[in-house]
Amino acid sequence: MSKPLSQYSVENLQTLEAELAREYSHVGGNRLSLDLSRGKPGADQLDLSNGLDAVIDGNYFAEDGTDVRNYGNLRGITEARQLGADILKVPAANVIAGGNSSLSLMHFVVSTALHPGLWGDHRAWRNSPTVKVLTPVPGYDRHFALTAALGIEMVNVDMTPQGPDLEQIQALVTEDPSIKGIWCVPKYSNPTGCIYSQGVVEGIAGLSNLAAADDFVVLWDNAYAVHDLYFPAESLASVFLSAQEQNTADHVVQFGSTSKITFAGGGIGFIAASELVLAQLEKQLGLMTIGSDKVNQLRHARFLNGRLEEHMQAQATLLRPKFELVLKYLQSELAELDIASWTSPKGGYFVSLDLQPGLAQQVIAMAKAVGLTLTHAGATFPHGEDPRDNNIRIAPTFADLEELEVAMQVLTLCVKLASVRNRLNGT
Amino acid sequence: MSKPLSQYSVENLQTLEAELAREYSHVGGNRLSLDLSRGKPGADQLDLSNGLDAVIDGNYFAEDGTDVRNYGNLRGITEARQLGADILKVPAANVIAGGNSSLSLMHFVVSTALHPGLWGDHRAWRNSPTVKVLTPVPGYDRHFALTAALGIEMVNVDMTPQGPDLEQIQALVTEDPSIKGIWCVPKYSNPTGCIYSQGVVEGIAGLSNLAAADDFVVLWDNAYAVHDLYFPAESLASVFLSAQEQNTADHVVQFGSTSKITFAGGGIGFIAASELVLAQLEKQLGLMTIGSDKVNQLRHARFLNGRLEEHMQAQATLLRPKFELVLKYLQSELAELDIASWTSPKGGYFVSLDLQPGLAQQVIAMAKAVGLTLTHAGATFPHGEDPRDNNIRIAPTFADLEELEVAMQVLTLCVKLASVRNRLNGT
Repeated sequence: MSKPLSQYSVENLQTLEAELAREYSHVGGNRLSLDLSRGKPGADQLDLSNGLDAVIDGNYFAEDGTDVRNYGNLRGITEARQLGADILKVPAANVIAGGNSSLSLMHFVVSTALHPGLWGDHRAWRNSPTVKVLTPVPGYDRHFALTAALGIEMVNVDMTPQGPDLEQIQALVTEDPSIKGIWCVPKYSNPTGCIYSQGVVEGIAGLSNLAAADDFVVLWDNAYAVHDLYFPAESLASVFLSAQEQNTADHVVQFGSTSKITFAGGGIGFIAASELVLAQLEKQLGLMTIGSDKVNQLRHARFLNGRLEEHMQAQATLLRPKFELVLKYLQSELAELDIASWTSPKGGYFVSLDLQPGLAQQVIAMAKAVGLTLTHAGATFPHGEDPRDNNIRIAPTFADLEELEVAMQVLTLCVKLASVRNRLNGT
Repeated sequence: MSKPLSQYSVENLQTLEAELAREYSHVGGNRLSLDLSRGKPGADQLDLSNGLDAVIDGNYFAEDGTDVRNYGNLRGITEARQLGADILKVPAANVIAGGNSSLSLMHFVVSTALHPGLWGDHRAWRNSPTVKVLTPVPGYDRHFALTAALGIEMVNVDMTPQGPDLEQIQALVTEDPSIKGIWCVPKYSNPTGCIYSQGVVEGIAGLSNLAAADDFVVLWDNAYAVHDLYFPAESLASVFLSAQEQNTADHVVQFGSTSKITFAGGGIGFIAASELVLAQLEKQLGLMTIGSDKVNQLRHARFLNGRLEEHMQAQATLLRPKFELVLKYLQSELAELDIASWTSPKGGYFVSLDLQPGLAQQVIAMAKAVGLTLTHAGATFPHGEDPRDNNIRIAPTFADLEELEVAMQVLTLCVKLASVRNRLNGT
């Protein structure tokens, strides 16, 4: 049966449907409980950072003498800012080291952009009757949820293998002054895993020069900056340098995090921006906290500074087989039938699987019914609405290899069965 | 000279002024650098919690098996919620354990009250053209700053030794539907150190039954719940039980923190509220974080659960001499002259000093000029405006005893000199 499904006769389709249905029914008897829904590190990855708890060892003083146990220091301690700088590849002076959640920092920056603004002047998004942000799709559900919750409209733009479609973006920001920003996950994008090309990075860095809005902000969530699966690591062009060259540094805010470097729930997050923007953010931050957890900042700086790549190589050693297993199953089960396409990321946390239009919800429900939880249908689109209902985000990191193998068997089985039935309905 | 300053002759005042001015000029030559401005724990207090870093010891699993290193669990781990429950004296089921800053939690709750509201229905403060919150004064500057930043007006009410003036409050909330809440620091209030009486606690717990607003919220910041200087500890009536009795549980949100129990910058914060409110808060929290730092929650629960009072007694042993020294100086230097009044708190972090009207700014400037930094004038009032310009908040915890002694000599000297000059100007 080594041919595209589209070339199957009805009879062959019926035979295949019966065979796959039997197999599916058999799987249903196995009482599986598998989960590929969220980008959570596996326990073996977390174990790599258990040394975090030993590095304080009674010495609570930062390099500059700061007692990290006490209050204060809104920008974070120097060595933690240096860690953020090493991850985001920007100068430490442009970094705020924060608490355990970069998502909170993003919520904070977008809230501040809305009111009172990022620049200490009259410019604030809330002054516009309508506020819109560009959302490359498929993308990260939590970006969409926080944006919607803050009353901001989302305008989808298409992802390409080189990043979001720059021409589409440039046309939109040029003509619509209510478009105030764009969400970007520039390296190993969630979920496609692509790396923005140099041209796309430069184009996005320069958007505020083209934008009809004078308060345009690039929200650059570099969540997977050092999360490479293969070394030497893939490189990403510097949005920081490009923005400096184009005089747009006040319109680019970067985010980073150690959540998928050390402990997912107990890491530290980072903001990188121009001094003008950092000063405004610091002022606002001072209204809601006396400072982030500097003890944890010190732990992370001592644990990672100087050995970040070595640590990420150890992570890659654990993750590479999982990604390769996912790709192996997609290739062996779906390629010849020509019923899906997928990405082959060299890092990050996800593989993006595109089915035939209209099948994603169905496949996710079929998988759920036999004990495999997938990211819910539409999650990679604003408001959970995938217009083609065809995208599934595969998150292979949390399951162990044995579970992952079963999960991929179930997933590809469901894709095949749904595709065959879809074809039969269409004939 | 053992008589009130008001009974001094002009000649005696002039003699005293000359003497104090000489003394002040002498102090000015000492190049002091002292700071009584913020409620920061001393290094010896922080040392009491250095054991925090040893309690994980490779075991990152909470009692219920949760791997605290990974993502998730917006309400916090069970044992951390129990710790919050022990501090706030509420059931653990009513507690959210959060990150390192209770101030962030307060900002979050007030933001949520504004929009989309705390109850999952139509009620949200933002729906009102004007939003006001009652601020007992003197009070906590950071409550005022975050309230103002969120565009909320503040209406001052007077503090009494039994807590804020209940009659004044009841009259205000009954007549003005734009009054949506009240800030309270019910035990060892910042800065007066008073404990709200049972009558005041019950009255405040019941306010939403009287209020013209249907979305009234008591913001109960029990920051010093277990921060007693003397044992057996002073008790505070339960706002939780009182609200249950009066059917107002959905209108009381409590806050707590370990910031002044363990590490000021590296503790955990708590919210306590009814299930209805917690569910709304959890939903909103999920938009901005995937969870708080559960590793630090586990550290704190293991370190403190079962030995909280013992730990606070150790804190008290360090703090008691500082408070007693402050009171000794106020008594010996200012009492007979009858030029000031002050509080004698049995716990908390502050002593509140009231001068003759119009002298606070002047005294603080005089102290600053010779190297003693005090909380800036007006800080204990909204917008930094002390209408009588007479309140000074003394924060004795950070300085060591020797520094504190010099600081109190300087402070009382400045108070005397300013009071004598004030008297001379008035004669």
